[in-house]
Amino acid sequence: MMSNDTMKRIVLASRPDGPPTPDNFRLEELPMPAPGPGEILVRTIWLSLDPYMRGRMDAGPSYAAPVEIGATMEGGCVGQVIESNNPDFSVGDFVDHRFGWCTHGVSDGKGLRKLDPEVAPLSANLGVLGMPGMTAYAGLNIHGRPKEGETLVVGAATGAVGTMVGQLAKAQGLRVVGVAGGPEKCAYATETLGFDACLDHRAASTPHDLRVAMGEACPDGVDIYFENVGGKTLEAVLPLMNTFGRIPICGVISWYNAGGLGEGASEGQNHLPRTWRAILVKRLSVRGFIVTDHYDQFPEFLDLVGPMVKDGRIQYRETIAEGLESAPQALISLLEGGNFGKQLVAVSEDPTRK
Amino acid sequence: MMSNDTMKRIVLASRPDGPPTPDNFRLEELPMPAPGPGEILVRTIWLSLDPYMRGRMDAGPSYAAPVEIGATMEGGCVGQVIESNNPDFSVGDFVDHRFGWCTHGVSDGKGLRKLDPEVAPLSANLGVLGMPGMTAYAGLNIHGRPKEGETLVVGAATGAVGTMVGQLAKAQGLRVVGVAGGPEKCAYATETLGFDACLDHRAASTPHDLRVAMGEACPDGVDIYFENVGGKTLEAVLPLMNTFGRIPICGVISWYNAGGLGEGASEGQNHLPRTWRAILVKRLSVRGFIVTDHYDQFPEFLDLVGPMVKDGRIQYRETIAEGLESAPQALISLLEGGNFGKQLVAVSEDPTRK
Repeated sequence: MMSNDTMKRIVLASRPDGPPTPDNFRLEELPMPAPGPGEILVRTIWLSLDPYMRGRMDAGPSYAAPVEIGATMEGGCVGQVIESNNPDFSVGDFVDHRFGWCTHGVSDGKGLRKLDPEVAPLSANLGVLGMPGMTAYAGLNIHGRPKEGETLVVGAATGAVGTMVGQLAKAQGLRVVGVAGGPEKCAYATETLGFDACLDHRAASTPHDLRVAMGEACPDGVDIYFENVGGKTLEAVLPLMNTFGRIPICGVISWYNAGGLGEGASEGQNHLPRTWRAILVKRLSVRGFIVTDHYDQFPEFLDLVGPMVKDGRIQYRETIAEGLESAPQALISLLEGGNFGKQLVAVSEDPTRK
Repeated sequence: MMSNDTMKRIVLASRPDGPPTPDNFRLEELPMPAPGPGEILVRTIWLSLDPYMRGRMDAGPSYAAPVEIGATMEGGCVGQVIESNNPDFSVGDFVDHRFGWCTHGVSDGKGLRKLDPEVAPLSANLGVLGMPGMTAYAGLNIHGRPKEGETLVVGAATGAVGTMVGQLAKAQGLRVVGVAGGPEKCAYATETLGFDACLDHRAASTPHDLRVAMGEACPDGVDIYFENVGGKTLEAVLPLMNTFGRIPICGVISWYNAGGLGEGASEGQNHLPRTWRAILVKRLSVRGFIVTDHYDQFPEFLDLVGPMVKDGRIQYRETIAEGLESAPQALISLLEGGNFGKQLVAVSEDPTRK
């Protein structure tokens, strides 16, 4: 147990070479910060773990600056105000914040959103009603441009993003085929999330096997491939893309640990020429996007999806790691597909959770 | 010389394995066809040779059916009506047609467009005012979405498409950087076409050299990469793409002869992961397109570009091979970059040419 006058955080100790290891992280204990005039002190309840964090651990250029060595790991969180010198926030208020991998933080309140636990469980604000949900919503609707009767494929089907992509697409009348790791996840995708089919990429011993299974699951081809994994899923889908198909790219998790150089795809081949040729011949639209580019649509996303979560039309699962100390191993596991649904860290007690 | 009662054509004799060779083609002499009721007989004056023809020689699926073994090679042509049983056409009319690699053809006139030699030289209807010009226009404006002050890169800069892309972009206030093979073409691109810079890919002995030169030529990065070559030009441009950049793909000529497997790009590496990651991180739009998808805009294209050709604001060059028999070697050369400007075959006399 931690005393009341210290807080904990996890910093980036060193940059990984390939998959992260526990020694890339370091737990630190610091004096508890005191909120100044106009500031609030927040204790973190839930920390979100997401695949993009792997990218932040590298030094190379990306859409966001890397985490510096010795700096707190970044991350989205839900917390509760425990001290307030700010008239806009009362002690007990729930807020989302981005203090990162730490137990407490001080803020002037700017950019913090108050959360109503009656609308949805607090943790849902980090999943279906948070960044991953908005990623699914923006990618599907803005860049995927779905039409009733079309076929959509999404990888990491039971992950935070895939779960939402598939269910939002089903609600719009699409055929939805997921790809996930293991029979349990695949059963959940079809039985609980309502996907039309879900392929187990671990059961496919070669990229060719997955391609054959994908062909059987998509008899009318693929109109939207919601790209969040890359690797052999991309390889399997590409030949099935229909003319004028769309490929929104929000991530390439299977490649994150590979230093950008292609494990997962068939070895020893340059897949770019045939990919480029498929884009040409099939007149595909391939579009990278980052959810923050579309945060102007966050209110309309919440208006649409909030009620769907509340009344159960949107289902989701969570994998919860207990305690801030468990975050490094939970991220390592997430990057290997070890999570089942949204990966969270329970940093402190959620008083609204039964 | 051919007698008046026979015509010639060139058929696909066999499918190439890699670059085409002369024995993939066969010259045939046939009886001259006679136009039936409502039909016209046309002699071909100009035959257009274009990179897409390489794709038609393969058996694999593409956006158009392959040419069958023993069938006439496809191609766009300009010709003159020499017999008419159709009240819409008079002997002496000039028309564009798609009879392919042959000296004569019969048509009911459907789909044939009459050409006015006062608007532009007849051959221009196969280049700047024809399919390649329209490819440039549609790719640049619909998929490239150019804005004044942006930087555009185009490969095969002095080819039929590149010539137009660059000049249309210059007219809209963009910085234009071309890539071409050899100092003569590069000088033409900057001195006659008005490009801001043109890089000689033959002078760059490694992909790295070209990348360095490209970086120097594009100090503000690249907003539009008009993709018609693939290979090391793509490799050089990709790291320079700006956020929200656009990559319209109309062709990948450097890969056409490689059976889809990557000569031109650095050997022994899978370039797909880093390409996919760049699309994500930079939020690029990559869009394949085929000019025929946009032929509804052909009239507005002619309205805009016709006057620019007539008054010299659009410059262009032609490489002319003499006689139908020269077409196979001219196509082989075109695929190696041997042409300088639009590649044509002079099949018979052009009475309008001085």
